[in-house]
Amino acid sequence: MFTLFCIDGGVCAPEGYFADGVACGLKPDGQKDLAFIRSDRLCDIRAIFTSNRFQAAPIVHFKQHAIETTNFILINAKNANAMTGSQGVEDIETVLSHAKATFGSIENPAMSSTGVIGVPLPKTAIMQGLETFDLNAKNPDAAAKAIMTTDRYDKQVAFEVKLESGESFRIGAMAKGAGMINPAMATMLCFITTDAAVPADEMATMLRLCAESTFNAISVDGDTSTNDTVMLLSNGASGVYDREAFMHALERVMHELALKIVADGEGASKCVAFHVTGARNREEAVIAAKALTNSLLVKTALYGEDPNWGRIASTIGASGVECDPDTLTIAFGGVTVYEKGTILFDAEQEKKAAQVMKKSAFPIHCDLGIGEGEFTAYGCDLGHEYVKINADYRT
Amino acid sequence: MFTLFCIDGGVCAPEGYFADGVACGLKPDGQKDLAFIRSDRLCDIRAIFTSNRFQAAPIVHFKQHAIETTNFILINAKNANAMTGSQGVEDIETVLSHAKATFGSIENPAMSSTGVIGVPLPKTAIMQGLETFDLNAKNPDAAAKAIMTTDRYDKQVAFEVKLESGESFRIGAMAKGAGMINPAMATMLCFITTDAAVPADEMATMLRLCAESTFNAISVDGDTSTNDTVMLLSNGASGVYDREAFMHALERVMHELALKIVADGEGASKCVAFHVTGARNREEAVIAAKALTNSLLVKTALYGEDPNWGRIASTIGASGVECDPDTLTIAFGGVTVYEKGTILFDAEQEKKAAQVMKKSAFPIHCDLGIGEGEFTAYGCDLGHEYVKINADYRT
Repeated sequence: MFTLFCIDGGVCAPEGYFADGVACGLKPDGQKDLAFIRSDRLCDIRAIFTSNRFQAAPIVHFKQHAIETTNFILINAKNANAMTGSQGVEDIETVLSHAKATFGSIENPAMSSTGVIGVPLPKTAIMQGLETFDLNAKNPDAAAKAIMTTDRYDKQVAFEVKLESGESFRIGAMAKGAGMINPAMATMLCFITTDAAVPADEMATMLRLCAESTFNAISVDGDTSTNDTVMLLSNGASGVYDREAFMHALERVMHELALKIVADGEGASKCVAFHVTGARNREEAVIAAKALTNSLLVKTALYGEDPNWGRIASTIGASGVECDPDTLTIAFGGVTVYEKGTILFDAEQEKKAAQVMKKSAFPIHCDLGIGEGEFTAYGCDLGHEYVKINADYRT
Repeated sequence: MFTLFCIDGGVCAPEGYFADGVACGLKPDGQKDLAFIRSDRLCDIRAIFTSNRFQAAPIVHFKQHAIETTNFILINAKNANAMTGSQGVEDIETVLSHAKATFGSIENPAMSSTGVIGVPLPKTAIMQGLETFDLNAKNPDAAAKAIMTTDRYDKQVAFEVKLESGESFRIGAMAKGAGMINPAMATMLCFITTDAAVPADEMATMLRLCAESTFNAISVDGDTSTNDTVMLLSNGASGVYDREAFMHALERVMHELALKIVADGEGASKCVAFHVTGARNREEAVIAAKALTNSLLVKTALYGEDPNWGRIASTIGASGVECDPDTLTIAFGGVTVYEKGTILFDAEQEKKAAQVMKKSAFPIHCDLGIGEGEFTAYGCDLGHEYVKINADYRT
C-alpha cells in the first residue's frame, strides 16, 4: 500500500535536483529558451526516443556516448538540431565542453533540443546563455517555460509517494509538446526526476511500459517528430524504493503530462478519450482508437461540436480492424447514438450528444462487440488555430 | 499507334449513353441531387469499391446481385445510405423497383449514393424525383452537377480515340469527390462509359491497374469513405477495340479525374505532386509519397507557402521506409534545398523555393538515394476552408 500526494516543484521536487531557464536570444522578446536540470549527485539515466528514422543530433549524441549516468541536462527550444548531419553532433560536443569548462563539476552531460528542423544549432548564443546559469537555482517554472515552443502553458507535475512503512520518495517532471504529436514511441520532450532508489537496470523497461498507455496513446496531428525524448533521471537521494509504488507514480506522472499535451494540442479546445472496447484483441483496439484520434473528419467534427457518429463508424471501418455494423455500438459520453445495427439518433439524442460535446473533455466509447480487446487513446479537435499556427510556424 | 482527342460530352460522349440530373429536394434551394446514366443497350459493368469494412448499402446491393450487365445507374447526393443496415438495402430495392415499374425497359439497375453517413435513405423523395427523368436526355453537365457534395465544380472528361486503322471509339466519365479522400482502393464516386468493344473479362483488371497510379495515388484528408466507387460501363456500340489504346485512354481518364479531385480538395488552393525516387523498392516509394500527402504539418506548410523542408524530411523519416539523411535530396520544383546531408537553404534558395510554392500546382521531389523504387502521389494543402467545411458539414 502507498499513497500519492500531489506536490509543487516539478523537476525540483525530488531531493537533490536543480533547474532553471534563461533567455539566450533564440526566442524573440527576451523569452526564456534555454534550460538545465542538474543533480547534486550522479543520476542513473534512461531515455526513450522517437521512432522517426531521422533522429535529431541530440539523440545521436546520447546514443553515441551510451550515456547511463549524468548530473546535467541542457535543453534548448526554437531549434531542433535535426537534419544537421555530423555538424549537429559536433555542435553539441562544443556546447557541452563549454558547459564543463564553465562549471567544472559536470559529468556525462546530455543535450535535448526542440524547434525548427534543418537549421544549424546557434551554438554561440547557447554557450553565452549557459554562462549565465546559476546551477544552485531551483526554478522549475522557469525551466518548464524555457522548453516550450507552440505550447500555450508549461506542463509540470510532481508527487510525493508515501509507503506504508512511513518512508517516502518523490517524482517530478516537466514536458513540452503541442504539435507533431503522434502515438508512436515517445512523442515530445519530457524530463522526469526522482529521488527513489530505482534499480538502474529496471528503468528502461518501466519507461517503455508506462509510455504504452500514456505518451504512446495521444495524438494531436499524427506527425512523429525527429526529436521526441522522454528521460528519467534517478539519483537515489531518498534511499527509498518500492517497485509497485514507483511504477504507479511513474505511470501517473506520464499520464498527467500526456493529457496536458493533448489538452494543449495546437489550436485544440477539447480533449477526447476514445475508449475502444470489444475489439478482437488489444492490438486491434489500439489501431482503432489511434485511427480515431488521427481522423481529420473526426477532429473537425469535434471542433464543430457535431455528434457526426457516421464519421466515427467510417473511421473504424477504414482502420482495417475486424468490425461489423451489427455488433458496433457508439456513445458520446453516456449518450448511445448507434447500437448493434440500430440508429438511435433522433432529434433528442442528437441534442443530448451535442450537449456532451460542448465540454472541454469527454469520452467517446466504441464497443466493437467482437472480443475482449480494449484501449483508450487521447485526441483533440482540429480548428482554425491549428492551421494558423502551422501555416506560419517558421516565420 | 493511336491518337487521343479531347472531346465534350462527359459520360454521354460515347455512343448510346444518356444522362441527366434533377432536383428531388435532398439538397436545399432546388439544386440538382439525383442523376442517372442509361445505355440504349445492355452494358457490361465492373466496379471497384472502398476498402472500408463498413461498405455502404449501394455497394452491398451491387455485390448481392452480382451485377455484371446493366443499362441503368441511379445516383443520389446528400445521403450516403451507409451504416443503415438491411433497411438501407431494402430501400434500394424499393427505389429501383419503382424505377423499373415507371420506365419498363430497365434491366439489372444499380444505385450509388454519396453524402451524410448514418441517415436512412429519403426514398420517397428519390422515387418522386426519378419519375421526372427524361431517359432520352443527354445532359452530362446536369448529371455531373447532381452528384456533387462539397465539390466546388463538376468533374468530367471525355476522349475520342482514333486507331491507325481509321476506326475510333470513345470513353467518357464523371466523378465527384473533395473530402474523405485517401489513397486506398477507389476513393470517390466515378462513372466511366465507353462504346469500345471491351472484353468483359478484362474490365475489372484494367480498372484495378489504372486505379493504382490514379485514384489510389491521391489524398485530400486521409479518410477512406464508406461509399467509394468507380464503375466502368461498356456497351460495345462502336464495335471497335484495341487493348493498348483503351488502357491508355482509361488511365488518362482516371488520371485527369483524380487530379481534378485533388485540385478540388476541400478548401485546397494547391495541388502538389510528391515525386519520390530512389526508394528501396516501389512499395516503399508508395509509402513515403502517401505519407507526404497525409502529413498535416506538410499540408499546412503548403498552405502557408513555407518551404519548410524539415517537415518533409521528418515525414519521410517517420513513414517507416528505409532512408538516410546522407543520401536524401529534397527539391521544390527545380530548387534543391537539401542534398545528401548538406543544407542548401540560404536566403536566396529559400526565396526561390517560396516562389515555386506560390503556384497552384507544383512538384516536390524527394530522392531517397537508396534504390530504384519510385512513385508519385498527389496531395493538396490544408487551410481554414477545410476546417470550416468539415466543422459544419451536417448542418
